[in-house]
Amino acid sequence: MLNFRNDYSEGAHPAVLEALTETNLLKTPGYGSDSFCAAAADTIRRLCGAPEAQVHFVAGGTQANKLVIGALLRPYEAVIAAATGHIAGHEAGAIEHNGHKILTLPAPDGKLTAQMVAQAVSQCGEEYTPLPRLVYLSNTTEVGTVYTRRELSAIHACCRELGLLLYCDGARLGSAITAPGSDLGFADYAALCDAFTIGGTKNGLLFGEAVVLTNPSLYPNFRRAMKQQGAILAKGRLLGVQFGAILKDGLYLELARHANRMALRLREGLVRLGYPLAYDSPSNQLFPVLTAAQSAALAEDCAFETIELLADGRLCVRFVTSWTTQEAEVDALLDRLEALR
Amino acid sequence: MLNFRNDYSEGAHPAVLEALTETNLLKTPGYGSDSFCAAAADTIRRLCGAPEAQVHFVAGGTQANKLVIGALLRPYEAVIAAATGHIAGHEAGAIEHNGHKILTLPAPDGKLTAQMVAQAVSQCGEEYTPLPRLVYLSNTTEVGTVYTRRELSAIHACCRELGLLLYCDGARLGSAITAPGSDLGFADYAALCDAFTIGGTKNGLLFGEAVVLTNPSLYPNFRRAMKQQGAILAKGRLLGVQFGAILKDGLYLELARHANRMALRLREGLVRLGYPLAYDSPSNQLFPVLTAAQSAALAEDCAFETIELLADGRLCVRFVTSWTTQEAEVDALLDRLEALR
Amino acid sequence: MLNFRNDYSEGAHPAVLEALTETNLLKTPGYGSDSFCAAAADTIRRLCGAPEAQVHFVAGGTQANKLVIGALLRPYEAVIAAATGHIAGHEAGAIEHNGHKILTLPAPDGKLTAQMVAQAVSQCGEEYTPLPRLVYLSNTTEVGTVYTRRELSAIHACCRELGLLLYCDGARLGSAITAPGSDLGFADYAALCDAFTIGGTKNGLLFGEAVVLTNPSLYPNFRRAMKQQGAILAKGRLLGVQFGAILKDGLYLELARHANRMALRLREGLVRLGYPLAYDSPSNQLFPVLTAAQSAALAEDCAFETIELLADGRLCVRFVTSWTTQEAEVDALLDRLEALR
Amino acid sequence: MLNFRNDYSEGAHPAVLEALTETNLLKTPGYGSDSFCAAAADTIRRLCGAPEAQVHFVAGGTQANKLVIGALLRPYEAVIAAATGHIAGHEAGAIEHNGHKILTLPAPDGKLTAQMVAQAVSQCGEEYTPLPRLVYLSNTTEVGTVYTRRELSAIHACCRELGLLLYCDGARLGSAITAPGSDLGFADYAALCDAFTIGGTKNGLLFGEAVVLTNPSLYPNFRRAMKQQGAILAKGRLLGVQFGAILKDGLYLELARHANRMALRLREGLVRLGYPLAYDSPSNQLFPVLTAAQSAALAEDCAFETIELLADGRLCVRFVTSWTTQEAEVDALLDRLEALR
Repeated sequence: MLNFRNDYSEGAHPAVLEALTETNLLKTPGYGSDSFCAAAADTIRRLCGAPEAQVHFVAGGTQANKLVIGALLRPYEAVIAAATGHIAGHEAGAIEHNGHKILTLPAPDGKLTAQMVAQAVSQCGEEYTPLPRLVYLSNTTEVGTVYTRRELSAIHACCRELGLLLYCDGARLGSAITAPGSDLGFADYAALCDAFTIGGTKNGLLFGEAVVLTNPSLYPNFRRAMKQQGAILAKGRLLGVQFGAILKDGLYLELARHANRMALRLREGLVRLGYPLAYDSPSNQLFPVLTAAQSAALAEDCAFETIELLADGRLCVRFVTSWTTQEAEVDALLDRLEALR
Repeated sequence: MLNFRNDYSEGAHPAVLEALTETNLLKTPGYGSDSFCAAAADTIRRLCGAPEAQVHFVAGGTQANKLVIGALLRPYEAVIAAATGHIAGHEAGAIEHNGHKILTLPAPDGKLTAQMVAQAVSQCGEEYTPLPRLVYLSNTTEVGTVYTRRELSAIHACCRELGLLLYCDGARLGSAITAPGSDLGFADYAALCDAFTIGGTKNGLLFGEAVVLTNPSLYPNFRRAMKQQGAILAKGRLLGVQFGAILKDGLYLELARHANRMALRLREGLVRLGYPLAYDSPSNQLFPVLTAAQSAALAEDCAFETIELLADGRLCVRFVTSWTTQEAEVDALLDRLEALR
Repeated sequence: MLNFRNDYSEGAHPAVLEALTETNLLKTPGYGSDSFCAAAADTIRRLCGAPEAQVHFVAGGTQANKLVIGALLRPYEAVIAAATGHIAGHEAGAIEHNGHKILTLPAPDGKLTAQMVAQAVSQCGEEYTPLPRLVYLSNTTEVGTVYTRRELSAIHACCRELGLLLYCDGARLGSAITAPGSDLGFADYAALCDAFTIGGTKNGLLFGEAVVLTNPSLYPNFRRAMKQQGAILAKGRLLGVQFGAILKDGLYLELARHANRMALRLREGLVRLGYPLAYDSPSNQLFPVLTAAQSAALAEDCAFETIELLADGRLCVRFVTSWTTQEAEVDALLDRLEALR
Repeated sequence: MLNFRNDYSEGAHPAVLEALTETNLLKTPGYGSDSFCAAAADTIRRLCGAPEAQVHFVAGGTQANKLVIGALLRPYEAVIAAATGHIAGHEAGAIEHNGHKILTLPAPDGKLTAQMVAQAVSQCGEEYTPLPRLVYLSNTTEVGTVYTRRELSAIHACCRELGLLLYCDGARLGSAITAPGSDLGFADYAALCDAFTIGGTKNGLLFGEAVVLTNPSLYPNFRRAMKQQGAILAKGRLLGVQFGAILKDGLYLELARHANRMALRLREGLVRLGYPLAYDSPSNQLFPVLTAAQSAALAEDCAFETIELLADGRLCVRFVTSWTTQEAEVDALLDRLEALR
């Protein structure tokens, strides 16, 4: 059975598991106040060229988004996000649960633009409207697209001008950084965003997202907010140990690069076979359009997700590659798709 | 350096880590919808004699308390808890963050009684008072004491009569079940509580608490609440794999029994040496009273927590044993304390 | 200066003010537990043919919407509303402040349909999506349109089938009931909605909305939710006295009918003068389209609101009539508009 | 029937009602953006010697407390209050509904002290504790006692030192200012508190509390929070008109002084008759202790509230005077109590 369902189907990269095993019986202080978390935070600050940044580790992506947005905003402040944004449709109302409205903007390619943000803010000048205060974007986006430095810089400048915070959900940040044509590195996110995450769950860890805060006005009491939101792990060092292992010797980006390479191979095959792509994704998520019959047949020996039923009855599906994806698996999928044409 | 700071200082029991390692590269569906979680839930239902119970797995204890109480209550409903209750003073306002008031009752031994609950409810009859709807207790309590079956049954009956839900925080449920004199097993919790947790973090897992719901009126949409509260782990199977390993062949209770045995050895030594105990704990947390000088001297080669500064200048401290505590460590601590008399 | 800005620019109908004055120095129990509120609630139950309905009085419309939705829903439950719905864009995130996501559906004429509701629900089947539980609609709508009995019945049936609650915001219920062609009376709202409001603020009262609950499952503890949300007025009888006065001898509907009649006169004039109407409203709000020059000139001696800047530079504005609007005022406005053609 | 139940049993002072009647048919902009609110706010700024203060008007006291605390705090911030504080036990969990924990301190006379506040803060240093950020006090307190300038100044200094906001609930501020021995005027509240309210409901208005913000860091977006919390009245001018009338020519303090005078007369009588007083109140609430038989007999021809059942079976009851209380009524009550001795 082939599996292109997602990039969190398996456990951890062997180096990560090994680090957990090696440190297993050590006794350390709890709640992330240990030397492993401190070292991993240092590594991240160094990678980001942000020696003053605050780094916190949490277990999952929805938790990270809910925590960051909840900690940064006052209750009457709202979030701007693409309609496809993860927080808008895939987190069961987690942001609203904390009291914040999400203003969703239609974004055909999953990406916000500075102009869209500015226009949304201009429509919220009255007392009875929500008050936008934070721009949420994800990179890579939920449809696999990737922001360029020019685009992110424009949003950054717009946010500065309008008094907005900029937060980047980096659940797939490795894939964004290593995507072909990408010109944004760790340090750019640190320079352009007030807060962002470095996703581990989808790129080699058992679990774990690093929250990086670069705007000093956001530092005070963040840990209190973490505790209040149930986001501090008792054995917090597990996150430090894992991030320490994955960030060593460039492993994090290497795994992401591999996943992207596998996706590119698959993408080239899909194009060659004539399957249309719903989104122009250079990263590890691809969104081909299949007929219902093709989808049903493929599902017999390949796991994947259906994203949308199109008006003409065809299906937009999703294939995701990960650090574990093998060339042979990609080729087997392509063989199968060739047979289904 | 001796370490009696807490029962979450180290990683997982080797059997748990081995299970994680063995299953590491399997690809399974995410979010806990995998066969490992299903099997662990079945095991728990069997242990509890509750074939219809819902079982959910979350990463941590504060998360579990926040989730359960938040999912079960309407916003205007309040919680009754002992003043020492974990949710009252140790979770940074996590329950209030979800909108619920905690009515705290003074409980010198950390335990609620049916009478205390009934009296608290009787004082909330007016429209302007909070509306108690759920009784929170923990077993073992935060001061190491343990409820008897008679006590828990009385609270259960009181809750039934008054229309209250009963929730037991079992972060140290293994220690409660195996404490000398304990007459409450898994099945009793299932029979007497509407919801309870089986704590893994403090008894052999890397992380993980099982939430057991036995009142069918609480089943609908609990998973939606989990997602909304950021409490669903992407690689949810990690929790199923771990619980599967720890619940196999009675390992869970064996580890707890060992911790209790080490605590008992320590307790007997403390009594022999004449150290007063602030709480009469039969479980794996002990609360001796030291002079400031004794505490300072001991801290040089033993990690432990100070709980309270007494009016006379002495300190109530806490020694916690775990499944990793060795007899030799207990004896070394006692030697040290003997020298400090 | 003409004034067509809104229907809450002035104080109360003289009969209402007189009732307040007559009862001013009486001493009664507080918080709405007085005989005036009881009598007004009885009158409403009688008007609605709903002898078992619960009736509560609150001071304002946003408060009513926030209270009802907050009291009825569990935190993980979401609301379905038209994109133009008052709660979606005009209450500064009040519903989200209580934790609930609003799923907004595009509705060109401001009205939801059963089909739209069903489709929205069908897209929320996954655990990670919000869980729709309540349909919010307003009648008249925010663009002046009015639901027919057939339309509301279809939505009612759809809600029943899908397990949704139906709530109608009746801030302008009088205008809806007395609109030309309307076939929905008080009793129909009681029969078709689980909860609805009868707006007083915009139809003769100083302030006040009556919340009518007809679904018995919603009765328990509603008053507790009111208190918690700050929605119980100390001198609650003020609401009972006012509603008592306005509901006497059909005054409530008479005032609304007058406002509608003035709007119809205005509408006929607008059509005659060739001003396009952005929405086909039979009620007391009209939405003509003016050029920027016309709007600027008119604003010199008439108060009104601008709703939207159209793509071609013209403006959709709003004229609102009320129980105080005089024929002569309508005619003066039409004269002015005739001169501006 | 005598009525000493509370100070919100009747309507408005005739001058207030007259002002409402005179302005009734004027058309003004809504939501408090009218000239009456502007003028009343100016008057309050002048009275307070605080030309920069922000003044907002809301309908009720619970609403004011919920709004101010909710608007000023971040979600993880907590409130310090006396255990008798109105927000702690009489608002159905309204503050927690907004996410904030209330740390309640035992205060036998209903008053916080700087020392109590400092000690509470010192116990909240750990990440897992709530983070105190605002001190709530009421003046007069819920048991009728009154802060002195020295006491309030000490709390103010303590708050400044510890980075806390100080908020005074002035639901009975008039009574506090005019109580015998009081040395705090409007300007002192403005100088010592970051925010406070001037209660109108209990001192001559139909309804209405003025919220005064003196700390500029609290100004931004307060109106947005008001709207979000449902606390902006459509016909907001009703509040401006009423406050304008009551603040004219010293009427506000005159009414409060009268109520205090009536209470003093009653208090002297109670002392003369030998009825013990549970609290030493110099203001318009008195708390005598009656036997159950006395209470039952008195209740036949006098309305009053029972506050507490004492251990010995006696009852602490409450008598409240208001601007409407007549000497003859006080004397009649005392006659009745004399007969019941």
